[in-house]
Amino acid sequence: MPRLRVHCLSMSLDGFVAGPDQGPDDPLGKGGPGLHEWVFETRAGRAMTGGEGGTEGLDHRMVADGFTGIGATLMGRNMFGPIRGPWTGDWQGWWGPNPPYHHPVFVLTHHPREPLEMDGGTTFHFITDGLESALEQAFAAAGGQDVRLGGGAATVRACLDKKLVDDLHLAVVPMVLGTGEQPFGSLAGYRALPVESEGAVAHVRFTKA
Amino acid sequence: MPRLRVHCLSMSLDGFVAGPDQGPDDPLGKGGPGLHEWVFETRAGRAMTGGEGGTEGLDHRMVADGFTGIGATLMGRNMFGPIRGPWTGDWQGWWGPNPPYHHPVFVLTHHPREPLEMDGGTTFHFITDGLESALEQAFAAAGGQDVRLGGGAATVRACLDKKLVDDLHLAVVPMVLGTGEQPFGSLAGYRALPVESEGAVAHVRFTKA
Repeated sequence: MPRLRVHCLSMSLDGFVAGPDQGPDDPLGKGGPGLHEWVFETRAGRAMTGGEGGTEGLDHRMVADGFTGIGATLMGRNMFGPIRGPWTGDWQGWWGPNPPYHHPVFVLTHHPREPLEMDGGTTFHFITDGLESALEQAFAAAGGQDVRLGGGAATVRACLDKKLVDDLHLAVVPMVLGTGEQPFGSLAGYRALPVESEGAVAHVRFTKA
Repeated sequence: MPRLRVHCLSMSLDGFVAGPDQGPDDPLGKGGPGLHEWVFETRAGRAMTGGEGGTEGLDHRMVADGFTGIGATLMGRNMFGPIRGPWTGDWQGWWGPNPPYHHPVFVLTHHPREPLEMDGGTTFHFITDGLESALEQAFAAAGGQDVRLGGGAATVRACLDKKLVDDLHLAVVPMVLGTGEQPFGSLAGYRALPVESEGAVAHVRFTKA
């Protein structure tokens, strides 16, 4: 059975995956970018944006795992962009003309919009009839491969609360944000795998029990 | 210079060091005991209560470090007992007749009480004139060794906010409590050491920058 997988959800020691005051100039909120610095130290992380070099150890493997066996991505509207209400202008996501997905991406929204085809094989589809429908369409598009759940916090929380997530990978970052976006209420029904670290972050993985 | 050190502060992924609803039958709050299970897998953790056996790897060394070079302990009233208001009865702490300290322990309280001498070298001193005075007395009693800050959450938070803590060791446990006691507002002024793990928990240490 194809699985719904969360990878590299970078979280502070106080349990926040994004800082407060998110907006167009601050998509990850105040202090949020620091959560993701470890990704861009790795070869897989640099390759996402066309960069070269980077480490090849545990952190690299964790980032690379998030691109393996994935046929579609699901994300919330807040991860796609800072727009509130009906779509205006021509917002095309945070990732430039060639987003690092290279497969169909399903964006949860209350406001209809035509599919948006980008370079490199990424097409954004805007889904207005709810989470379950979006998941169904994502699994159909994935053609037997797994679906990656991108974020943000509210979408991850909704999927965890309904036990829709099969595999969850957190990267716990040794910093404190104080306030921000929280990704889960409880992890009842999930089982932790052994914690792993090579120094920058702690990788904590959960799988549906 | 002797240092003020926090060891083995076991914390959930959502940043809680004790669960909600603490009380005489639930000193660590709902779900709180699960945070400390890793300690009792180690040889040093078992030895605390007179037990034998246990693991001897990284987790053991982290527990053992908390007993090395320590001449006195400081703790808040809530870590000593569930009593509120003036002292009544003969509450002698959670640890039985021979507490695992074996040195002077300074308990912050608003209510005076005579020192309480226990078996094995532990004497509890009840300090009513504030945190700075308690620290001064603890360092004097430690005779040139370091002072361990035991907890609970409120006392650790007060000491971190005032940058009185020199070394902080968190053990991040792969579980979620949802609510409970939080040990810090921010860690501004502290620098993280490399994260270490052998599977059960992530050891994250900070030192005053």
